[in-house]
Amino acid sequence: MELPSKILEQAVDALATLPGVGKRSALRYALHLMKSDEGEVADFLSAIGRLKTDLHHCQRCHCVSDTPICPICSSPKRMQNIICVVENIQDVMALENTQQYRGLYHVLGGVISPIDGIGINDLNIGSLLERVRQEQPTEVILALPTTMEGDTTNFYINKQLQQFPGLTVSTIARGISIGDNLEYADEVTLGRSIANRIPFNTIKN
Amino acid sequence: MELPSKILEQAVDALATLPGVGKRSALRYALHLMKSDEGEVADFLSAIGRLKTDLHHCQRCHCVSDTPICPICSSPKRMQNIICVVENIQDVMALENTQQYRGLYHVLGGVISPIDGIGINDLNIGSLLERVRQEQPTEVILALPTTMEGDTTNFYINKQLQQFPGLTVSTIARGISIGDNLEYADEVTLGRSIANRIPFNTIKN
Repeated sequence: MELPSKILEQAVDALATLPGVGKRSALRYALHLMKSDEGEVADFLSAIGRLKTDLHHCQRCHCVSDTPICPICSSPKRMQNIICVVENIQDVMALENTQQYRGLYHVLGGVISPIDGIGINDLNIGSLLERVRQEQPTEVILALPTTMEGDTTNFYINKQLQQFPGLTVSTIARGISIGDNLEYADEVTLGRSIANRIPFNTIKN
Repeated sequence: MELPSKILEQAVDALATLPGVGKRSALRYALHLMKSDEGEVADFLSAIGRLKTDLHHCQRCHCVSDTPICPICSSPKRMQNIICVVENIQDVMALENTQQYRGLYHVLGGVISPIDGIGINDLNIGSLLERVRQEQPTEVILALPTTMEGDTTNFYINKQLQQFPGLTVSTIARGISIGDNLEYADEVTLGRSIANRIPFNTIKN
């Protein structure tokens, strides 16, 4: 697709760097912005620019925050003795949306992945251990993705947490999704869900 | 979806104003931009900002252009005696992609639509008539959408162009799409394509 203007082309190329946005969508966005009022575009640009200038990460849990300590960490309503370890900020939001968890979080910023060149020192694992040492929680929940990389990270963190006697290390339940038919579940999930079966009377709804 | 930061929320709201972008995609874009280098984000913002500051419209055909007269209008390779009237810039690009048209364009900037409050004076119809008067082309091709609004605009422009004797006013061919089965074509298209049938030997491939 040849564009009649270099400036339009550069804007399209910029918008096409967004994840999952192709040239055609990027062109649609660019033409929309071109037609918008100058004030609207200025607001659009300043809102995005502030992501780099004004947005901080919580010093305690590494989640995004407008303040040095995020609202979750500083809330007196949250249980201070449970830390849930997640991969990224989206996972914090997903767990918050369930309204089932009232403890604190710790955002790793990724999972161990030698293929992508992500090692232990690229993640917030050191600060997690330091935090456990200082805050002395009673439980750390590992809520990482159920992938090879997530499991590797789980194993590593669990091993490191063994140095704290009395600390419970748990992981979120894996198994058949609520509403799923066994027939259509993948073999690995189904196999593990029978191997890791739990007493019926302990189920919480 | 509750976001942990007002600044992130504002960026998400800004990105969600793009056409066809929902909150979830906007969040994905915002987090991507948040993780990008400062330089990358600065380039992104400046490329979009230039859409409002540096992008011009061709004084002759109203297509976007970096120069007062666009590359198509100023090209000596284009036939100067044919003007193709289109609704918007995307249509110019679509026709250019076919590589079948070597004349000039005239971008109306919309079609007559009383429901949307778009009247004759909101479109570049006056400048089209002025252009035909000055440039004296031999043919004007009406390539507007095959909608009620497009047809209304076609009729209006055609009527106005009757004041120029010797000017041919044509419209792009409408009918069954290449590769389509008659069985699945809509009734209106099929009905009109039989009413407007053309001599077999005149078909150009």
